[in-house]
Amino acid sequence: MVTDSPFTTENPVFANFVFYATIVVLKMMLMSGITAAYRITNKVFINPEDASSFGKQTKLVTNNPGVERIRRCHLNDLENVIPFVLIGLLYVATGPSLSSALLHFRLFAGSRLAHTVVYLLAVPQPARAILFTVGILATASMAVSTLLAVSF
Amino acid sequence: MVTDSPFTTENPVFANFVFYATIVVLKMMLMSGITAAYRITNKVFINPEDASSFGKQTKLVTNNPGVERIRRCHLNDLENVIPFVLIGLLYVATGPSLSSALLHFRLFAGSRLAHTVVYLLAVPQPARAILFTVGILATASMAVSTLLAVSF
Amino acid sequence: MVTDSPFTTENPVFANFVFYATIVVLKMMLMSGITAAYRITNKVFINPEDASSFGKQTKLVTNNPGVERIRRCHLNDLENVIPFVLIGLLYVATGPSLSSALLHFRLFAGSRLAHTVVYLLAVPQPARAILFTVGILATASMAVSTLLAVSF
Repeated sequence: MVTDSPFTTENPVFANFVFYATIVVLKMMLMSGITAAYRITNKVFINPEDASSFGKQTKLVTNNPGVERIRRCHLNDLENVIPFVLIGLLYVATGPSLSSALLHFRLFAGSRLAHTVVYLLAVPQPARAILFTVGILATASMAVSTLLAVSF
Repeated sequence: MVTDSPFTTENPVFANFVFYATIVVLKMMLMSGITAAYRITNKVFINPEDASSFGKQTKLVTNNPGVERIRRCHLNDLENVIPFVLIGLLYVATGPSLSSALLHFRLFAGSRLAHTVVYLLAVPQPARAILFTVGILATASMAVSTLLAVSF
Repeated sequence: MVTDSPFTTENPVFANFVFYATIVVLKMMLMSGITAAYRITNKVFINPEDASSFGKQTKLVTNNPGVERIRRCHLNDLENVIPFVLIGLLYVATGPSLSSALLHFRLFAGSRLAHTVVYLLAVPQPARAILFTVGILATASMAVSTLLAVSF
């Protein structure tokens, strides 16, 4: 049996998945940089060795509202972006149509980029709740489609 | 060189992996919904914009025991389900037997579903410790098997 | 169209990725064990059912500095190791040269193993910041290379 692998960049569904998945993972990684920059510019450190080297101070802060907001946004990414990439990989293997796949990838990527902006700027609800829900539904829809494809 | 890819749904090991991995990732994503539902029904908010929109109140709560238990359960999923899916993908590439693969996938999925129930209901130990260990051992066993397959 | 899949262990780039990715995920999973061992030996519990079963005590501790340091190190792994594995998989699909791929994999794996030692032992800065940056740059470089490969 010689079967074409779905995981080559000559498969347009996979090539598009690679593009959007890389974008959202890079966005997630950017949160580390934002956290570090905020900690250093605001001198808000959680490790004693950081405070003594970067801050010329020794007081540790564990509840700075700015840092905690960035960290919640980062954790929210971990909880949503990683499931998208994992489920997305499995979904690509089930051979979805390009148009359906693109719809899922773009809804997810778009909603998560907007979610980050809305979270960090504390835009009034329900903006963040709506964007969060769009992302969850995109991933859940791919998951259900994947389960149906391998179950029957 | 034309080599059959292990990552097609015609490979029964991969098709089963897709099924069990999707189930456990969906289970993990469900924790977001449980957290949101608990926060709204118990009016326990961590962001000012959430409290003012959903709760008709402004007091923020950062240490509600119910929310913290759900969040620990969610974080525990992130720390265990994601390694399972990542290692599982690599393990599938090494061409394990179907029976051995199914044993790993089922032990992991079963123990994690039970782990969530036991954690959320605060069932006395060592129930959760045993279920946690079964899941870790299933993933670690796949990891060792994968390392041996690519090292020699 | 019959295209060779990049995801077989006969592709040396993928075989090496499997090796290094498995090592860093196992390292990350080890943090769970370190946390559990530290909690039990120091009787620092966060769940009531754990304290009553393992600790012969009922006082819950949420801010033990040792546990919190291990947990920050674990969370830092989640934020860095998982993006590496996800981006690395997509990067392998774009067919990089073996020498370039090995450089990325080894820089990442080496810097993260050292990062864990430096974090847990609280080695003075900038040791941890440098190691963290090397890991981030290795993943970001793969991400950029992947985006370029699928965009043009």
